Amino acid sequence: MKTKKAAETYTLKTEMVLPNDTNTLGNLMGGKLMHWIDIIAAIAAQKASNRTVVTASVDTIDFNSPIKLGEIVLLEAQVTRAFTTSMEIRVNVHTENLTTGERRPSNIAFLTFVAVDQSGNPIPVNQIEAETEEEKEWFDDALRRRELRLFLAGRIKIDDSEQLQKLFLVGEN
Amino acid sequence: MKTKKAAETYTLKTEMVLPNDTNTLGNLMGGKLMHWIDIIAAIAAQKASNRTVVTASVDTIDFNSPIKLGEIVLLEAQVTRAFTTSMEIRVNVHTENLTTGERRPSNIAFLTFVAVDQSGNPIPVNQIEAETEEEKEWFDDALRRRELRLFLAGRIKIDDSEQLQKLFLVGEN
Amino acid sequence: MKTKKAAETYTLKTEMVLPNDTNTLGNLMGGKLMHWIDIIAAIAAQKASNRTVVTASVDTIDFNSPIKLGEIVLLEAQVTRAFTTSMEIRVNVHTENLTTGERRPSNIAFLTFVAVDQSGNPIPVNQIEAETEEEKEWFDDALRRRELRLFLAGRIKIDDSEQLQKLFLVGEN
Amino acid sequence: MKTKKAAETYTLKTEMVLPNDTNTLGNLMGGKLMHWIDIIAAIAAQKASNRTVVTASVDTIDFNSPIKLGEIVLLEAQVTRAFTTSMEIRVNVHTENLTTGERRPSNIAFLTFVAVDQSGNPIPVNQIEAETEEEKEWFDDALRRRELRLFLAGRIKIDDSEQLQKLFLVGEN
Amino acid sequence: MKTKKAAETYTLKTEMVLPNDTNTLGNLMGGKLMHWIDIIAAIAAQKASNRTVVTASVDTIDFNSPIKLGEIVLLEAQVTRAFTTSMEIRVNVHTENLTTGERRPSNIAFLTFVAVDQSGNPIPVNQIEAETEEEKEWFDDALRRRELRLFLAGRIKIDDSEQLQKLFLVGEN
Amino acid sequence: MKTKKAAETYTLKTEMVLPNDTNTLGNLMGGKLMHWIDIIAAIAAQKASNRTVVTASVDTIDFNSPIKLGEIVLLEAQVTRAFTTSMEIRVNVHTENLTTGERRPSNIAFLTFVAVDQSGNPIPVNQIEAETEEEKEWFDDALRRRELRLFLAGRIKIDDSEQLQKLFLVGEN
Repeated sequence: MKTKKAAETYTLKTEMVLPNDTNTLGNLMGGKLMHWIDIIAAIAAQKASNRTVVTASVDTIDFNSPIKLGEIVLLEAQVTRAFTTSMEIRVNVHTENLTTGERRPSNIAFLTFVAVDQSGNPIPVNQIEAETEEEKEWFDDALRRRELRLFLAGRIKIDDSEQLQKLFLVGEN
Repeated sequence: MKTKKAAETYTLKTEMVLPNDTNTLGNLMGGKLMHWIDIIAAIAAQKASNRTVVTASVDTIDFNSPIKLGEIVLLEAQVTRAFTTSMEIRVNVHTENLTTGERRPSNIAFLTFVAVDQSGNPIPVNQIEAETEEEKEWFDDALRRRELRLFLAGRIKIDDSEQLQKLFLVGEN
Repeated sequence: MKTKKAAETYTLKTEMVLPNDTNTLGNLMGGKLMHWIDIIAAIAAQKASNRTVVTASVDTIDFNSPIKLGEIVLLEAQVTRAFTTSMEIRVNVHTENLTTGERRPSNIAFLTFVAVDQSGNPIPVNQIEAETEEEKEWFDDALRRRELRLFLAGRIKIDDSEQLQKLFLVGEN
Repeated sequence: MKTKKAAETYTLKTEMVLPNDTNTLGNLMGGKLMHWIDIIAAIAAQKASNRTVVTASVDTIDFNSPIKLGEIVLLEAQVTRAFTTSMEIRVNVHTENLTTGERRPSNIAFLTFVAVDQSGNPIPVNQIEAETEEEKEWFDDALRRRELRLFLAGRIKIDDSEQLQKLFLVGEN
Repeated sequence: MKTKKAAETYTLKTEMVLPNDTNTLGNLMGGKLMHWIDIIAAIAAQKASNRTVVTASVDTIDFNSPIKLGEIVLLEAQVTRAFTTSMEIRVNVHTENLTTGERRPSNIAFLTFVAVDQSGNPIPVNQIEAETEEEKEWFDDALRRRELRLFLAGRIKIDDSEQLQKLFLVGEN
Repeated sequence: MKTKKAAETYTLKTEMVLPNDTNTLGNLMGGKLMHWIDIIAAIAAQKASNRTVVTASVDTIDFNSPIKLGEIVLLEAQVTRAFTTSMEIRVNVHTENLTTGERRPSNIAFLTFVAVDQSGNPIPVNQIEAETEEEKEWFDDALRRRELRLFLAGRIKIDDSEQLQKLFLVGEN
């Protein structure tokens, strides 16, 4: 197993919202955006692991403001941390209105992907090295988000997790 | 505002996994499944509100086992509870292998949709009446999930929520 | 060969008419609806036979009123009867305008599917047992529709078919 | 109203079967073929009427042999006859395997389209003049097919139609 | 190796511009048109070679006037000349507005395809025989276009090509 | 009119080759790649002009080696120079095999886009300022490519263009 720098997994995808992507209000459909988020995250996870990867989970995504037909969607993905066979990927979505030049944050999503062999069985992945302050913060928080996922799935209890105790009892979300 | 019975919002969508929906392993792409989940949830939310609706959030979704090319995907959506202008929808996904007749649970997703007028502004929605034991449980838990969403988004503290205190302190997830 | 109850093959598909599905008038294209009808019928035929199936024929379909962008299309399929290697499937299409709650019948289609092995050769299928009055009527009429198909394809004469004689001479369509 | 020659409405569409068009056996899906048939027929009907047109009905289509991935599909459409506001279109489908050069008939479909104004109301169409022997045969038979459609839809009786009496009683299908 | 007549490779594809094909102005997207041009040229090249073919190059394409939603696009392809393992295909694109009956030239494109075996290696192709005056002109000019391509790719010099000398020095474009 | 720095128009799009994008050899179709090239170039041209843009021409594109199912395609676009109402965009395409980490140049394309108002009429665009050595080279060569386009379209003669005289007579391609 090698160690990869987090920045090596950085992936950018730019899309234009076309009629085919919109709902009856002329806005980008939430499901279409999730489709793009899933693909860009898969590419980042492949860069990190040099393996075929499959989506294991997608954390809560909020859709705050509509994205209109003709607007540009920028999706940036980067692997935050690798565990044994899984990786957490952060996807940051912005929109740009190229007539006004205005750029607007849209969503931040965290996805977990698992690397698999040809039979679809999980296999160990390269570790991720965080370098910048921001990457270190994402790396550290990845553990808390992971335990939160396990807790929400009913697979661990708060007592099992120092991370969750800090999150919930002190409320330092 | 009227009150609608939860069961009136029940919506079922059956899909067959076609080559166009698969990744390079021949499995249904996570993003495509999320797209279907978003559409079926939107239909259920429209049945409840008789309004145009937009996706406000999608809770954590776990993808436990791959869905193969040629398998059938059954997506069942039902509105669990309405708040002022928003509704929570539960989407239950099963897969069926029609050669063996085997039916397998795949995912449970909770989405929030907001009803909007022609200008895209939120408008009040019909309330939802839970009738069966299961619907009542979904209805009650909807409040806890809502406060969890607000907590995870940093918009409320644990001290503000009796629901979250029960969830986290007693651990009765 | 087993016998399956007709109701076990019931399949429901709910679709929302999106911009991608419409013609230049903003109405659902007939060809897109036929595509959906074919898929839902294929799923019902697979439920009945537990086999790979291929479309053998589609009976006359009438399109009586346009289905508009944003409307909901409900496609219900059920196998009416099985012959040696083929099955007849009835697809009933309704549309729903979720703003008004109005539900409107759209089309009734009858399709024939053949079960095939891996080389694409026809293989015997499970028989279908009709239980309700309606299913029994569909089952009985399936024979007449089958002979009508053979007659229209020039493969049998009216004299060969008691069913067709009743249909045409007495006119009890 | 003008009169158009049938040959002026001739339309040819050549398609290659791509992965996106196939089922799990690697064959063209019946529904996809019907989609292409509907589009080519619409174009022929527009050539005849110089109007926006909508699908009114599709007669029985038989699918005799599978069309494989990579094969070429040739769809030829021509209007056979115009009635007051409707037109009948004949679509003849061949497939070609370009490795062997083999050309194979696949389907013959008859569709009815109605010309509509901007509000979607039917409007009168140009009449069609058949010139060749083949076109004259299609023109004459169009009336019989039309009455058969009306009979099958329960809208006329055999006694009302000399055409149907000839078809059924003499069996000269 | 056989010789094929140029006319045997003639291929026609008729498309209707649907909402899915348009940009935010309601016009056909240039990239979608190029997609259609590539497919029709591939079919013509397969007719000529009876082989699997891959795109090797596309010459400059000009887009002179927008093609609107609902208009008809006619793409005619014909192989102009075969070299050792490659073929040049000419694609002539017209549009038709079926309401007015007006027909308008849109683009002329020249593409080069290479025939390949199952491993993707180039293999010799059938030669092409030009019969009409127009085909002979296309055949002759194919050599000049080929040398222009090689020159523009920096692979030959003007001194190496009598064709290019004539083109550039005398300016008989 | 403002002046924009060339680097401000830089746009990156990352795509994964999915089954839907491939031909029968499992390779990315040339037409699909051209579709992506057109979209990324349109986005860069919009960044430069803050206007709706339409494709005016695409220069010769060479396809040197097949791009396989599952590989990653990176498309980088940047405006090289603006003329009165048109802009030239350079699109550089690489592929990446994420299993081996190997990165391979694929294509370089030059496209011309025109900025248009709501009626589709050309309007003046912001000028582009080249800063790096590479951008200055692209800027200078844009003029030669433009005159070559005009020459190939038969709209100017070699005598009219000092650029073309240098290109053809001295052969400094």
